Amino acid sequence: MVNFDFKNTTRIIFGKGAVENAGPVIKDYKGSKVLLHFGGGSIKKSGLYDRVKKSLASAGLEVVELGGVVPNPRLSLIKEGIKICREKNLDFILAVGGGSVIDSAKGIGVGAVYDGDVWDFYTDKASPKKTLPVATILTLPAAGSESSYSSVVTNEDGALKRPLDNDVIYPVFSILDPENTYSLPPYQTACGISDMLVHVIERYFTRELNVELTDRLCEATMKTIIANAPKVLAKPDDYDARAEIMWSGSVAHCNLLNTGRIGDWASHMIEHELSAVNDVAHGAGLAVLVPNWMKYNYKHDPQRFVQFAVRVFNIEENFHNPEETILNGIQALRNFFTSIGMPAALKEIGIGEEYFQKIAEKTKKFDPKKGTVGNFNPLTNNDIVEILRLSK
Amino acid sequence: MVNFDFKNTTRIIFGKGAVENAGPVIKDYKGSKVLLHFGGGSIKKSGLYDRVKKSLASAGLEVVELGGVVPNPRLSLIKEGIKICREKNLDFILAVGGGSVIDSAKGIGVGAVYDGDVWDFYTDKASPKKTLPVATILTLPAAGSESSYSSVVTNEDGALKRPLDNDVIYPVFSILDPENTYSLPPYQTACGISDMLVHVIERYFTRELNVELTDRLCEATMKTIIANAPKVLAKPDDYDARAEIMWSGSVAHCNLLNTGRIGDWASHMIEHELSAVNDVAHGAGLAVLVPNWMKYNYKHDPQRFVQFAVRVFNIEENFHNPEETILNGIQALRNFFTSIGMPAALKEIGIGEEYFQKIAEKTKKFDPKKGTVGNFNPLTNNDIVEILRLSK
Repeated sequence: MVNFDFKNTTRIIFGKGAVENAGPVIKDYKGSKVLLHFGGGSIKKSGLYDRVKKSLASAGLEVVELGGVVPNPRLSLIKEGIKICREKNLDFILAVGGGSVIDSAKGIGVGAVYDGDVWDFYTDKASPKKTLPVATILTLPAAGSESSYSSVVTNEDGALKRPLDNDVIYPVFSILDPENTYSLPPYQTACGISDMLVHVIERYFTRELNVELTDRLCEATMKTIIANAPKVLAKPDDYDARAEIMWSGSVAHCNLLNTGRIGDWASHMIEHELSAVNDVAHGAGLAVLVPNWMKYNYKHDPQRFVQFAVRVFNIEENFHNPEETILNGIQALRNFFTSIGMPAALKEIGIGEEYFQKIAEKTKKFDPKKGTVGNFNPLTNNDIVEILRLSK
Repeated sequence: MVNFDFKNTTRIIFGKGAVENAGPVIKDYKGSKVLLHFGGGSIKKSGLYDRVKKSLASAGLEVVELGGVVPNPRLSLIKEGIKICREKNLDFILAVGGGSVIDSAKGIGVGAVYDGDVWDFYTDKASPKKTLPVATILTLPAAGSESSYSSVVTNEDGALKRPLDNDVIYPVFSILDPENTYSLPPYQTACGISDMLVHVIERYFTRELNVELTDRLCEATMKTIIANAPKVLAKPDDYDARAEIMWSGSVAHCNLLNTGRIGDWASHMIEHELSAVNDVAHGAGLAVLVPNWMKYNYKHDPQRFVQFAVRVFNIEENFHNPEETILNGIQALRNFFTSIGMPAALKEIGIGEEYFQKIAEKTKKFDPKKGTVGNFNPLTNNDIVEILRLSK
């Protein structure tokens, strides 16, 4: 187990009717002039927009709206938000939506109180020291951004998608009402499930030994996601299953699950560049890549992949042939993704071999000197291209 | 799943050498005049005291010492601590020790900034609104107090042991170095393991259905504790096993494991009164009680007890005879406690039948009107006496 420094300061207000708390709780946190940040029309169609506005009004809060966040949120809108916050002296940001809206809000939060260019934070040129407080009302369980210290933003200038990880950007609170997810289309629900499952998988595949508690917590979360995914797809208003998925998505990414271990994250980094090519949903891109990342890498610690197969997918272990067990485990993961409607090949999401080299080059490297990404088995550009070939 | 409002603001600094952070980190949190609170001589013997003093001195902090905390910490020492903090204008409390020291520090923290009697907070006469910041250096993994909102204190006047649960009293940070637990005597190690395991069991036995994620997180934590307990007892300086136990103790009680569910807690409430009778170690008292609490109550939701047996102790399920599976699970728990040296009967800890009625009467009731304690199956005084009889 490696040393760690862990905290997660986000407060979670979870359950039916939790939205009605938004206004009063923002007031508790001394907010008075609020940027209401959201995406397209879905929250208006579902009635959530009206409920939120009502709650904010009931608490006597001043509200300025900024909608228009798109998947893979854009730097340009963040800059617009920063400008609004400064001009109108706003003191609180409420993000209503999924990971893209929340990530965008986090960018606005740190940018509004920073003299330089907010893109500095996403390119390691500067580190944010403070932020306007950001709260969220989650509508799409997926990214885990509602209780994470991460924000991923796309700079249209160069189609670069870059993450910022910093303790400063934990939301102060997040409201999770599973009923707000009933109206999600099946494909979006499934992409979210894929994303949260892979958040655990990225943490699970570590080279650290002696990480038993976090192994088991990871397995607990993966099993719960896998068991409840078919339920929410079969019955979109199954409150209990929606609640399991929603809470699993936060737990998956709240960083408890990687205490004492160093996760991999290569698949996420590569996927960011798939999405930058053609705006494919993050979860769909991950579903294509991850089983192939596993096939390409399992030889670096086969027993960890046996454990995954046995404990997560209840594969009967072949004690004389670990490889059989491993491949059955990887196939079970592939079958799971397929069962929830995720693509299994890059061609299904419109990414041909002509992009592979460019994607490999653009993938942000953890170790720029060696030019590698990922910790389980640090991948070179050639490795990335090989994984993309397995995925075509 | 029931609605919940969850946060845990304690920062965990975990690993080898983490103690050296104490001084600098207290300074980061704007502490300057520190009450150093501890128990007896064990931290002096182990050298921890000197390391802590050195770290505090290196950061230029002023230090006032208050040792002498005993197991089942006393109200009188808390009052002394409050007096010292006020007289010397202290602005930070550092607790070095186990749950008793930390609980005592929490009492001093809320009492020092309160005009009334600190006992008000433990008797529901008042609710703390603020505290002096409290940090901890944990030496005994057990109570989970290092990242909990709880403090349990004994008022010598009447031998009343009472808990305070309040968000205000989360420690700001806690330093967990598994090496600091190498020198714990086996019995204390085992009592701590019993305590943390029962913290999960109290949460696990809920009447809520549809709490799959937290069920599985609880099972993950219990399995880890059970697997690593014999290792730390066989080899006290097994770093990895000590680390699993130490981190499990915090996770067990950080409240993530009861999100969406309502735990029982009757065994804890009854045990507090056993300890108040004769200062028996909390974990030892719990080990005696809990299997008998289970025997007395399983008929109120047999399937939950089957799940416990199968998932936590890998009991082969008898599908035609759930009761057999349940009783095998309870016996496995009893065997586990015995294997780590815990007592199995009240007579072993010097509590005879003559105390049963009084213990039942003194147990703090959740529902004073009905006179019941516990949520899984609310227990009357008669129920408590029956469980004590099963335990004699």
